[in-house]
Amino acid sequence: MRITAVIMAGGKGERFWPKSRTRLPKQFLSLTSDKETMIQKTVERLKGVAEPEDIFIVTNKIYEKLAHEQLPQIPAENIISEPCGRNTAPCIALAAAVIEKKYGGEQIMLVLPSDHLIRYEEMYTDTLRQAIAVAESGQRLVTIGITPTYPETGYGYIQFERDTTLGMRGVYQVSRFVEKPDIDTARGYLASGKYLWNSGMFVWKTSTILMNMNKLMPEVYSGVVEIADKFGTDEFAVALSDGYEKLPSESVDFGIMEKAEEIYTIPGSFGWDDVGNWLAVERINSTNDLGNYVEGDVITIGTKHCTICGGKRLIAAVGVENTIVVDTDDAILICDKNHTQDVKKVIENLKICNRAALL
Amino acid sequence: MRITAVIMAGGKGERFWPKSRTRLPKQFLSLTSDKETMIQKTVERLKGVAEPEDIFIVTNKIYEKLAHEQLPQIPAENIISEPCGRNTAPCIALAAAVIEKKYGGEQIMLVLPSDHLIRYEEMYTDTLRQAIAVAESGQRLVTIGITPTYPETGYGYIQFERDTTLGMRGVYQVSRFVEKPDIDTARGYLASGKYLWNSGMFVWKTSTILMNMNKLMPEVYSGVVEIADKFGTDEFAVALSDGYEKLPSESVDFGIMEKAEEIYTIPGSFGWDDVGNWLAVERINSTNDLGNYVEGDVITIGTKHCTICGGKRLIAAVGVENTIVVDTDDAILICDKNHTQDVKKVIENLKICNRAALL
Repeated sequence: MRITAVIMAGGKGERFWPKSRTRLPKQFLSLTSDKETMIQKTVERLKGVAEPEDIFIVTNKIYEKLAHEQLPQIPAENIISEPCGRNTAPCIALAAAVIEKKYGGEQIMLVLPSDHLIRYEEMYTDTLRQAIAVAESGQRLVTIGITPTYPETGYGYIQFERDTTLGMRGVYQVSRFVEKPDIDTARGYLASGKYLWNSGMFVWKTSTILMNMNKLMPEVYSGVVEIADKFGTDEFAVALSDGYEKLPSESVDFGIMEKAEEIYTIPGSFGWDDVGNWLAVERINSTNDLGNYVEGDVITIGTKHCTICGGKRLIAAVGVENTIVVDTDDAILICDKNHTQDVKKVIENLKICNRAALL
Repeated sequence: MRITAVIMAGGKGERFWPKSRTRLPKQFLSLTSDKETMIQKTVERLKGVAEPEDIFIVTNKIYEKLAHEQLPQIPAENIISEPCGRNTAPCIALAAAVIEKKYGGEQIMLVLPSDHLIRYEEMYTDTLRQAIAVAESGQRLVTIGITPTYPETGYGYIQFERDTTLGMRGVYQVSRFVEKPDIDTARGYLASGKYLWNSGMFVWKTSTILMNMNKLMPEVYSGVVEIADKFGTDEFAVALSDGYEKLPSESVDFGIMEKAEEIYTIPGSFGWDDVGNWLAVERINSTNDLGNYVEGDVITIGTKHCTICGGKRLIAAVGVENTIVVDTDDAILICDKNHTQDVKKVIENLKICNRAALL
């Protein structure tokens, strides 16, 4: 079986405004000190697992050019441009159908977000290889779980139990998927030792996911098969453009994972971070003795526990605490660390006021 | 007697960085919503009290051009440029000597800072007229005191007592001048009803202040008489440049007011503010329901009790409280309201690093 990978890169990254913008979202930026962007690193860390010609990118059509520019090693036809966002289920189903059209059935398919951080790449690829082994061995859906380190309320959780069927070390059966919990529930999950974070990374055979799609989301299944049938021909772009927006918008978690059978999870401990909002910057970069992370031209006086990302101008922070400051050419964000989720309200405000240049 | 006014405009306004800079200090800026700068307003509010040709500006030579540009109605020779700062005593003594050289002795002289806010201009000019009447009536030094409204620790105070000699309503004798108090002492002053804020505004005859200078600061007296003797001639600039820096640096409060006799004060209640640091901006402008004062392109989400002065770019403040944000083309200040005095540490840092462009 061929090992293929599908990288989902349609996200808008609104929580990283003002650095991420509608036309340049998070996955096409570097939020670490690396020169490479997050999607470039996502492709690179598949080295030894999947060949570049077997990597597929599903992104929004407005990012198509960016994807081609940043990933010249990926065959052009492997970059699939959604005319509109339809959440993860149609995206994954289409990719599976395209892979079967291109290579025939029964290929292994890794599904990976394009904007997560992985610190320990060797452990990551080892985990993927183990997931591939499970997926190859039957009609199984494998999800990579993350061992929680604190009671995060921004992630979904996976409840697992000891596997009684496969007899493979480090593989567990999934009892259920749960939505983002409140803080007390999250503390309980952490204390129980029975829950993992849902990373949104999946491994299965194309035939397995398409069989489940056919059964649980037949409308999505028939839609993507029709579109994928034109893959590799001049008619594909039109079929995609016409057919995709008719598909229902649904997540693979809700549409498939919460309802399907034979779901397994492999707990990964490879320094994962979903880089979900500006708070991630201090987690993934080292802070100084005062708890500050600063980049660019910054003077701090009596300033503690701040993340300050300078642009072209000097930023002087005096007596500031627990605050995130991000400067760009046309906008500056100053955000209390307890209010990072409200950055989206700035974007709502800009949309209402038709200030497209700032979005 | 001619009513002359001396406006002191040599200050650097470092506490208003980044808006005020070494080459464009506070008095030459507008910090209110007015178009006029603070020094222009200082001159304007003398209308009906002193004629423009009788107004003198003492400023640093690096601000000479700004003063001529902003105050075209003032005769060029009345703009006196100090080669270096020597505090208020030499500045006032030189101005007094110049006025006597130009107009002969016994002129009334108002001494006024260039960077204070006055809300009620009619009450202000009435107070000045009363001070002029006291100054005219003898060899008296009159200081304008301000009725305190809260226990400010950043000002000097004037202790006053009932006048038993002049018999003029609203005029009091000064018992003593006191330096900036600590907060408990300031609370005691406020409660006692026996103290006024020292505004740094004075009224006297040129002969009175020069007599006191001759007696209490003879070195300053002889120095400024020698310089002023060249006023109106081609030699004045050289005399000023050579002679001024030899004068000792001293305030008129310490050098004269704390030691002289026949000192009177007139309490003014004309909406005075010394606009001493960024906290003044919210005092002199009206804040909205959330306690914010914003100007420019600003979006606030969950933000309270902030002063945000935007520049050319959008500022988005999310969940921020008690903070001052000031944006300019090349620098942005983010300062907790309890740390406004530390803005000068930013300037020290910039000086140490030889970053003259930002000073």
